[in-house]
Amino acid sequence: LTTDLTTLSDNLLKGDRRALARAITVAETGGSQATELSKRLFGHSSTAHLIGVTGSPGVGKSTLVDALITNIRKAGLTVGVLAIDPTSPFTGGAILGDRIRMQGHTLDRGVFIRSMANRGHVGGVSLATYDAVRMLEASGFNIVIIETVGVGQSELAIAKTADTTILTLMPGSGDDVQAIKSGIMEIGDIYVINKGDLPGASKAYSVIVQSLELTAVNNEWRPPVLIASAETGDGTDKVWLAITQHKDFLESSGTLVERRKAKIQAELSEIIAAKAKRNFQEGMSHSGQIQALLQEVLNLSLDPHSAADRLMTELLPFAQK
Amino acid sequence: LTTDLTTLSDNLLKGDRRALARAITVAETGGSQATELSKRLFGHSSTAHLIGVTGSPGVGKSTLVDALITNIRKAGLTVGVLAIDPTSPFTGGAILGDRIRMQGHTLDRGVFIRSMANRGHVGGVSLATYDAVRMLEASGFNIVIIETVGVGQSELAIAKTADTTILTLMPGSGDDVQAIKSGIMEIGDIYVINKGDLPGASKAYSVIVQSLELTAVNNEWRPPVLIASAETGDGTDKVWLAITQHKDFLESSGTLVERRKAKIQAELSEIIAAKAKRNFQEGMSHSGQIQALLQEVLNLSLDPHSAADRLMTELLPFAQK
Repeated sequence: LTTDLTTLSDNLLKGDRRALARAITVAETGGSQATELSKRLFGHSSTAHLIGVTGSPGVGKSTLVDALITNIRKAGLTVGVLAIDPTSPFTGGAILGDRIRMQGHTLDRGVFIRSMANRGHVGGVSLATYDAVRMLEASGFNIVIIETVGVGQSELAIAKTADTTILTLMPGSGDDVQAIKSGIMEIGDIYVINKGDLPGASKAYSVIVQSLELTAVNNEWRPPVLIASAETGDGTDKVWLAITQHKDFLESSGTLVERRKAKIQAELSEIIAAKAKRNFQEGMSHSGQIQALLQEVLNLSLDPHSAADRLMTELLPFAQK
Repeated sequence: LTTDLTTLSDNLLKGDRRALARAITVAETGGSQATELSKRLFGHSSTAHLIGVTGSPGVGKSTLVDALITNIRKAGLTVGVLAIDPTSPFTGGAILGDRIRMQGHTLDRGVFIRSMANRGHVGGVSLATYDAVRMLEASGFNIVIIETVGVGQSELAIAKTADTTILTLMPGSGDDVQAIKSGIMEIGDIYVINKGDLPGASKAYSVIVQSLELTAVNNEWRPPVLIASAETGDGTDKVWLAITQHKDFLESSGTLVERRKAKIQAELSEIIAAKAKRNFQEGMSHSGQIQALLQEVLNLSLDPHSAADRLMTELLPFAQK
């Protein structure tokens, strides 16, 4: 077992793609092997620029990522892409497993694309994703892109994780207004109105620019609003340019260090929450005391807050798993 | 302080609406007062039928809820509505605070409507919502509706919380396909194609019915697929009928007990995760040891998993807060 992980991490560090793919599967599966592998690779990470691409379903995030890959490759850089799929807690796996549009890059060894199932994790970005990002970094990729499906919490989680967050919108169907209503207008470092050839693109542009003027969370970086058509490639070079400008800004202003500190803090917070949950769930199936406590809550003789306190102070083994 | 909570809970139990509103604010604010109030009210809850209304932004969830309120009132029942708004982690509050469509019910004392901010919580349904549901139950409401914005994790969380989950979709714009892709097609007890007067409604109907036939997670309850127009009220009586049928099914089949057990388990899991996170975040600002640990991770000399283990076994006070 230990030998396997040693070979796996050695090969991964040499840039072996199959080792990388297997390592990410280990991360996805979780458990002690994932933790062990993550520990081994940790010291070799933290160099890639991490781009988050987010937005409502159907706005064309995958197509935009596909176009960005082309720009990144033209710039002589390598890129790893993690596409986070939503999980069904009933089937326990990803339904959307195909990344059809990105298939054009499969023969390019400077590109690695992987769909990851979000196994019911907090905030839409699973712990496995943090590990997978490190694995891509350890494999030597210059840039890592995380693409997330969904609106809301997952966008907020991405904003805490990525160095540069791209919020993708599309004209019409009130997508711009919904974005503002959803409170996700403050998370973007770059705003892309994709499908910019559709009617309503310039109206969407105005709405977003105005909303950003009202928000003004960051005085130093003014998030650009770009109109693009990832399908035809129009305007995607400007998106790539904006990414490089944002990277320069982060580095020159010292913001990058702050972001990475916040990112580690967010990750630790997620790991701790996940461990606490797992301890509880494992305890549920093994401990008669915990079962009895649950029954007390069901009988309305003990409230959930008091039950949680008792679990955390007495019943749950918070030791290393 | 204690006297205040006593008065507050006494008045709430008498059905005083202002006490209810204040109590929910206490729950939203969180902390020890919220826990204390929740403990006081706990024994008086668990009677209302809990309906979750969920679906992508823009499908008309609020309008549907509005129409359902009318049906519920016609049936001689009272209803409390919690509309969960997404939170901006930057401003810390809800942006969408208005519930314009539901204003028609504000003078009806059998209806209570409240927007709740999702304070960055796991899964889109905050701990405050669990407490607020109990407060509505303790106030004597027969039915509680939770409406959530967002696609993905929050839908999954709602499915674990509600007795009856309504997944709302709209025709066209690939909303049906996106729902299937998002893996949220397995969570609905009732599917409503809202804006059923738009072109594509019957196509959306076929797509969803077919997808449900492929899924077939529950052999006993066949989720009905209904076409409605909440705006005009067409078909919303059928939605209400389906809810009552689902309630009867849950009770006669014994599924209700199982659902409520799963709900309590999910709530305990969330409370424990939230407490663990809060302990960490509080520890971050107070403990030099925890700060030093974070710095080790930033310096790449300690991996996050090992750091989390050390935090949980040594550094974090998991005692009651």
